Amino acid sequence: MVRSETHKKLFIPGPTEVREEILDAQAQWMIGHRGKEFSDLYGGIIEKLKKYLNTDMHACVYTSSGTGLMEAAIRNGVDRKVLCCVNGAFSERWAKIAESCGKEVDKLEIEWGKAVKPEALEEKLEKGNYEAVTVVQNETSTGVRARLEELAPVVKKHGALLLVDTVSSLGGDKIDVGLADMVLASSQKCFALPPGLAICTLSDAMLEKSKRAKGKGSYFDLANMIEYTEGKRQTPETPAISLMFAMSAELDYMLKEGAEGRYRRHVEMAEHVRSWAKKNFALFAEPGYESVTVTCVKNTKNINVSDLNKKLKEMSISDGYGKIKDSTFRIAHMGDLTLKDVREVTAKIDGVLQ
Amino acid sequence: MVRSETHKKLFIPGPTEVREEILDAQAQWMIGHRGKEFSDLYGGIIEKLKKYLNTDMHACVYTSSGTGLMEAAIRNGVDRKVLCCVNGAFSERWAKIAESCGKEVDKLEIEWGKAVKPEALEEKLEKGNYEAVTVVQNETSTGVRARLEELAPVVKKHGALLLVDTVSSLGGDKIDVGLADMVLASSQKCFALPPGLAICTLSDAMLEKSKRAKGKGSYFDLANMIEYTEGKRQTPETPAISLMFAMSAELDYMLKEGAEGRYRRHVEMAEHVRSWAKKNFALFAEPGYESVTVTCVKNTKNINVSDLNKKLKEMSISDGYGKIKDSTFRIAHMGDLTLKDVREVTAKIDGVLQ
Repeated sequence: MVRSETHKKLFIPGPTEVREEILDAQAQWMIGHRGKEFSDLYGGIIEKLKKYLNTDMHACVYTSSGTGLMEAAIRNGVDRKVLCCVNGAFSERWAKIAESCGKEVDKLEIEWGKAVKPEALEEKLEKGNYEAVTVVQNETSTGVRARLEELAPVVKKHGALLLVDTVSSLGGDKIDVGLADMVLASSQKCFALPPGLAICTLSDAMLEKSKRAKGKGSYFDLANMIEYTEGKRQTPETPAISLMFAMSAELDYMLKEGAEGRYRRHVEMAEHVRSWAKKNFALFAEPGYESVTVTCVKNTKNINVSDLNKKLKEMSISDGYGKIKDSTFRIAHMGDLTLKDVREVTAKIDGVLQ
Repeated sequence: MVRSETHKKLFIPGPTEVREEILDAQAQWMIGHRGKEFSDLYGGIIEKLKKYLNTDMHACVYTSSGTGLMEAAIRNGVDRKVLCCVNGAFSERWAKIAESCGKEVDKLEIEWGKAVKPEALEEKLEKGNYEAVTVVQNETSTGVRARLEELAPVVKKHGALLLVDTVSSLGGDKIDVGLADMVLASSQKCFALPPGLAICTLSDAMLEKSKRAKGKGSYFDLANMIEYTEGKRQTPETPAISLMFAMSAELDYMLKEGAEGRYRRHVEMAEHVRSWAKKNFALFAEPGYESVTVTCVKNTKNINVSDLNKKLKEMSISDGYGKIKDSTFRIAHMGDLTLKDVREVTAKIDGVLQ
């Protein structure tokens, strides 16, 4: 093993810190992806994932980034027209992805830092005729959290599919995947895994829509993926097997801590970072809608994040993203990080800034 | 490290055997994908890849299977109509992928086991008006190798783009990527890496076509991928970083052996397996067109491959694929396997069959 003794602990919103046990889990001997050994591995992952998410919906794991599944959501869930709720860089990206797939896109535009609210959504849905609505539940760029339980009934009432990006929250925040027709996430955030895998759950309605979707292509054909997953317990394409080894091991760890325990830990970390940020800077997110996995801090003291990271040495936080790149910075408190870890990083920042 | 002391050595046509040094290379500490450390890693990979392939064409590495890039080839290289040369399961799959993307597909159908020839291609191209032609250079299902140097001038003469699948041959067989507008491959075959990454080279003409392609989507937008790769030396999407660590290490190893050395080793392995197969069974591939990376054997003795694999214990070969699943079996001799390895596997099979 050539892993160095020291490294920069990651407090960036993905890839997040990966524990050594999980790094090592990747390095098992290679196996074929059409045999019983892989079926047991992948089938086991799906079982554990559903158990962790407390759901009996369809679920699968893709070899791609989370953005890949944002495209899958569009190609499988939208024939013609979609409403994209936009209040940050990633929700804006989803709208662009939909356009790149040749779909008609309407946007519900909300000021960055503010949350998508049911009233605004209702108003938009009454005027248009949308097959689906996209919502980023946890805007990684602004640290804003959407309240799915308030938005889902509005979308349902209008008969549209609800497509939800939980890329930077699933596995940390408390999320009822049953509220949405598709919930997607990626491995390198709250699952504390290396990047390369993406996860989604699907409703029966989404699966039916996928079966009929024209021009959806092959790689992100969700109906075919679910057929393989639930049939042979394999994937249609050759998957990233070593990352699957890691995911299987991490899911065991997550089930031991439990979804409730992970949520509480994320809330504790978030409360510490928020209270530190309020004392020294200010929060970017609208009060009451702050993310529990990443805090976006208004850079009121105009600190240089790149210089700060150099001085933090064995730790790394993140600058802002998109149009608020310079006016904010972000501290991620996600995955398997602990309250002790985030206390260390804020103390270290205090030390540098003094 | 929890890796077991023994395992089944893989003589299947992907995933192929991965050396322990490379398995371990995956397990390095996670890094961010928007920093200098990753740019150096990824930029280094592209440099080494181009050096190995002896090319100055555009090149990039995707987090996906090789099939993902088969779809990318279609979405970026074909607006309307494509000619797919079909002589096995994977070339047939490419035609299906093109259809799933909503393209008009014509097929040049050739008997399985036979190679695509320039005369048949010429005849087809004279009758139709195609933007692109797909060719599987190494049909993993039949063990048949196409002669690109004979096909490329025909395609060029008719002004079409040549899209070439070298999934199971690049890094083993001798391939002049400059003959084609897009050459694609995946990590788990002759590159002897874990699956999860896919590689491609692109001509200027393909890049221009990609820039103008409508409805190409985002994940497989080749023009955007090349812009990031050649600009920031990063990828537009979060990539499978641990697999990139492994790829960087393997490319060092490949450059030490050299493309010529790797080709000679693959030819030696192929000659041994072919001569063994001819003595005991028969070859499926048309004489003169046999793959140098995988041998498809006519199962003239009707052996049960699943039973055989159980008896081979620490080695594993592959059954047939697609419609010749039961009438053939396959021995892969690709990646970092050696003549000693393939001699061992054929000797072991002899032992079991006696």
